[in-house]
Amino acid sequence: MTKIAFQGERGAFSEDAATRFFGTHIDFLPCAYLRDVFQAVLTEEVPFGMVPVENSQAGSINDTYDLLLSYPLNIFAELILRVHHCLMALPGQSLAEITAVYSHPQALAQCDKFLSQLQVETIPAYDTAGSAKMIKEKHLRDCAAIANSRAADIYGLEVLASGIETNPHNYTRFFAISKQKTRPARENKTSLVFAVKHVSGALYSILGIFAARDINLTKLESRPSRDKPWEYVFYADFEGHVDSEIYRGVIEELREKTTFLRLLGSYPKSEERLA
Amino acid sequence: MTKIAFQGERGAFSEDAATRFFGTHIDFLPCAYLRDVFQAVLTEEVPFGMVPVENSQAGSINDTYDLLLSYPLNIFAELILRVHHCLMALPGQSLAEITAVYSHPQALAQCDKFLSQLQVETIPAYDTAGSAKMIKEKHLRDCAAIANSRAADIYGLEVLASGIETNPHNYTRFFAISKQKTRPARENKTSLVFAVKHVSGALYSILGIFAARDINLTKLESRPSRDKPWEYVFYADFEGHVDSEIYRGVIEELREKTTFLRLLGSYPKSEERLA
Repeated sequence: MTKIAFQGERGAFSEDAATRFFGTHIDFLPCAYLRDVFQAVLTEEVPFGMVPVENSQAGSINDTYDLLLSYPLNIFAELILRVHHCLMALPGQSLAEITAVYSHPQALAQCDKFLSQLQVETIPAYDTAGSAKMIKEKHLRDCAAIANSRAADIYGLEVLASGIETNPHNYTRFFAISKQKTRPARENKTSLVFAVKHVSGALYSILGIFAARDINLTKLESRPSRDKPWEYVFYADFEGHVDSEIYRGVIEELREKTTFLRLLGSYPKSEERLA
Repeated sequence: MTKIAFQGERGAFSEDAATRFFGTHIDFLPCAYLRDVFQAVLTEEVPFGMVPVENSQAGSINDTYDLLLSYPLNIFAELILRVHHCLMALPGQSLAEITAVYSHPQALAQCDKFLSQLQVETIPAYDTAGSAKMIKEKHLRDCAAIANSRAADIYGLEVLASGIETNPHNYTRFFAISKQKTRPARENKTSLVFAVKHVSGALYSILGIFAARDINLTKLESRPSRDKPWEYVFYADFEGHVDSEIYRGVIEELREKTTFLRLLGSYPKSEERLA
């Protein structure tokens, strides 16, 4: 059975993403830290890891990018998943009995409208699925957690309300990482990281390499360098596969115009946003 | 006495930033939520707010950008501050007695080397200064918090170690926000937010508006739109003041080429990175 590493407790959103992509007939390796996911793939303990890279509301997950840079692994696929938040509590409890709600601060913020109608105390916790686990293990009555419905199944909690996120357009983008490379699909994307010396004209000329070939940019983000504050590196995604005809010459031109360049991988574009 | 609003408990990094910019002869309005800071400035309860906008390791603080977009306020100034983390505990405790360390997950991660040498349990908490406050109020013996030295002064804790961050290049950029505008200084920056229809060629042509005038870009970040997932808006900073000669025509050209444009303000460039 294929084993997939992910960060978090059982029932985390990344576990959900893994089952959506690899099917339900898989085995899991839950990891305490994101780094452990990369390490498990590198040492071939598992063939794949599933890591979040970007959320439509919270932005890029920089830790994932740092690890993508430091581990010699490929982006095998991307997956874009709608985030559904559920309120869950010990079986038999009613919504009216709930006085306190635990979850990750971001999940609490994303359900602010629902929570303000409920008039409960909100208690920030380290993790969404971890909050569900805690309610079960400590048998916390009159308390609820916000997590995804998978966490309710795993920890034997009852879902009291679902789809409680304020903004329904809440999506998280995941990368499946692997030592394996994927074959080009009909539609592909390529992710790369580069640095330039003088940001203004230099970035403009880099984008020109792609604009001249009508290659579409789907993401661009400058980020302060970890080592040289306020010097910027760029995270970029472009449509197309780096082995395709249209990319001929792109990498050479990029090497000339950047001070640092790292190709993170070409992979099939997520076919749809999964509900 | 000038009153400055900031988010967090007394002793937060934003409070430190406020004293660095406005001097020590000021009064504070600590706010529970970032939104409250903007609201206090809007309703003229305070003339200024101090908000974090970007950290050299954690990236942009998207909540701040969302609030900058929704409140009709100006960026009055920027301030770039080195982040110094300290380990603090109840007076009389020694480093060897500490068995558990509380702090915000990001602060714990930023001190990972120091903490692994210490061999203590790390306990993620909602806030850095809030962890210091909790140790004092609950009189937690053998526990320490990671926060800035100001928090130790405020809560009567003793600093057991300082400068414990793994990477010394850890800077946070703050904005002072206000209803007031600042006069152009010798060196200025301009922050704006815009959206474009087709990201590839359109962004290239926008950067061309600035490149043609030799205006330097200091930040660029695409971000999924909150309402239309995977359509992107851009956060950008350029050198120069929007009222200056060199910017003549820039705004008109920008309006033509963007589907959305919002000027967040022109303000004096942070003169130095304060240690």
